Order: sequence, then structure tokens, then C-alpha cells
Amino acid sequence: MTVKSRPGGRTARTKAAVFEAVTALVIERGHAAVGMTDIAERAGVAVTSLYRRWGDVRALIMEVAVEQLLRDRPLPDTGSLAGDLRKWARSIASGLKSRQGSSFFRALVATAMPPGAEGSTRTAALQRRLDQVALMLERARARGEAPPPLADVMDHLLAPLYARALFGVPANEAFAEQLVERLLKER
Amino acid sequence: MTVKSRPGGRTARTKAAVFEAVTALVIERGHAAVGMTDIAERAGVAVTSLYRRWGDVRALIMEVAVEQLLRDRPLPDTGSLAGDLRKWARSIASGLKSRQGSSFFRALVATAMPPGAEGSTRTAALQRRLDQVALMLERARARGEAPPPLADVMDHLLAPLYARALFGVPANEAFAEQLVERLLKER
Repeated sequence: MTVKSRPGGRTARTKAAVFEAVTALVIERGHAAVGMTDIAERAGVAVTSLYRRWGDVRALIMEVAVEQLLRDRPLPDTGSLAGDLRKWARSIASGLKSRQGSSFFRALVATAMPPGAEGSTRTAALQRRLDQVALMLERARARGEAPPPLADVMDHLLAPLYARALFGVPANEAFAEQLVERLLKER
Repeated sequence: MTVKSRPGGRTARTKAAVFEAVTALVIERGHAAVGMTDIAERAGVAVTSLYRRWGDVRALIMEVAVEQLLRDRPLPDTGSLAGDLRKWARSIASGLKSRQGSSFFRALVATAMPPGAEGSTRTAALQRRLDQVALMLERARARGEAPPPLADVMDHLLAPLYARALFGVPANEAFAEQLVERLLKER
């Protein structure tokens, strides 16, 4: 859901207060224990405006988490496809092990999985990240390298790292690099 | 957790009643809405005995789900590695789309992801299934075929299917077969 707001306008200030509240509450209590009312109270806004603007608490938490991700873990631009993929893969692996990263992952999984949820709700916030990945691959293509399709990167780099995180199977940076080598060899 | 029981003995009858109760309740309400007290009531057993024997409700639901899986979706034995992997991959893809299968997957994810959960709790029930997969690969090795390592099957066949199910990305039987072809080519 996009709401246009002038920089510094009331809508932008409200969003900042809400996002700050979400961030603090998720750190304090874990994402599963944070409700819309808690957020409204902490941010000093009406809970009805939260529902109107973000739909439900899961979608809001996801949007905050993705914005943090985009800001704190920008995609690499090393000048080569192999360099970009290796650096990115290593940062995913180390991120999934960190407290904030595994907290983000749990929120992601919780948001993704409610029965009957709209596919669009689940992936809307993540699309921004996917677009960045697509751009990284496009840069490689522009350089004359032959990047793997985005789907292959999702299926054979992200999915193995996510599945291992889900099932508590170790996935260190060396493993992440092996995934990249396999992906590059496969082209 | 294993509790030895004579066939037909009281322990076995209790287990049957408990498993029947879990199955019915999960169908009626979804796994997230089923608590140990509900199960105890439906099965006609003391809730303390459930905690003693299964630890917590998630582990119990997972054990019931895995037993259903092992019973309803035995691994194939077609006589060739390619045949086995293709048949299995197709059944995973179709299973994840079915109501019962996606219900199982959601229970699996919910059990896997509580913050700070023991790795052993998460994967104990699933180990039975992993052992079956390892056996399927071992049969291939005994026939002189060169099966991929179990880890590769998990990372590049199961993980992509699970990740797509998690994020609502379509994964049909044809896609599952492509994953198998890729895996077999990679050896």
C-alpha cells in the first residue's frame, strides 16, 4: 500500500513514529507479541488509522522489517556478478545467524504463512527487495556477463539458505559461497 | 521422544486416541488453534500425561503430522534413482498444494520457528522422513547409480519447493521435475 506524503509532512511524520514504535516493540517483545493496539499506543496514533493505512499488523511489521533490511543491508555493487553474488550470499548467511536477522526471518515466515492469506499480502513488502536483486542481475547483463535468471537465484541461493535457517541446519558463509559457485557453474 | 509400548497395550491405545484427537482437531480448527487441553479433553486423557509424554503441543502436532505423512505418502521405489526422485518430487509439489499438505507444511513451519527452540525439537519428528530419503538414495547407490548427496537433495529439491510454498510462488509438478533434472545433471 503506498500513501503519498510530502517529505516532512504529517503523513511522513506519522509513518516515522509508527515505524519507530514497531521497531522498538519487536525488539522488546518479539514480533508475535506485538499487536496493532500496542503500536498505536506507542506511536501516539489512532489504531483505526493504522488498520486503514497498513491493513493488518503482520503486513505493517513486514514493511518495517523490509525497510530496515534495505537500509542496513544494501545489495553489493562490486563490479562483477560473481563478486556481487558472493558478497550478498555471505551477508544473507551471516544475517540469518544474527539476532536481528533471525528476528526478521521469523517475522517473514509468520507473515508468509497464515492460511488463506493473499499472495499479494505476503510478498508485497518483499517485492522491493526482489526488484533490487533483479537490478543487480541486470547490471551484470549490461556488463556482458551472463547472469542466472532471477528464479534460479531465488530457488538455488535464497531457498537453501532460508530452508536451513527454518530447520536449524547450519549454513555458514562458506556454504553460501558454495551455493554461488554452483549457480554460476550451472549457466 | 520414544515410549515403548506393547501392541494393544494401554500405552498404545492412549497414543491412538491422542493421535486421533489431534488429527480431528487440526482439521476442525487449524493447528494454531489447538492446545494441549483441547487434545486432552478430546482424547479423554489427563493433560499432564500429554506434557509428560510429548513435551509440548507443537511437538505432538508435528509427530502426528509426520506419522500421517509416512503412512499416506510413502517414498517411491520405482527401480531407478531418476524414477524415484521424479515421483517423489511431483508428490511433494502436489502435496503442498492440497489442503492437508499445506496444513502439514504450516504446522511444520510453526514448529520449526519458535525463537530459541532447540534444534532437536524442531527436527526430531522429521528425522524419520530424512532417514527414508537417505535409504532411497542408498538403494540407488547399491544399484550402481551415483545418487546426489542427501544435503544436495535437501538444498536443491526440497528447499526450492518449500520456499515457493512459503512465499506463495507457484510450484507445479513440471517445476518439481525440472529440479530433479538439474540435480541429476549436477552429479
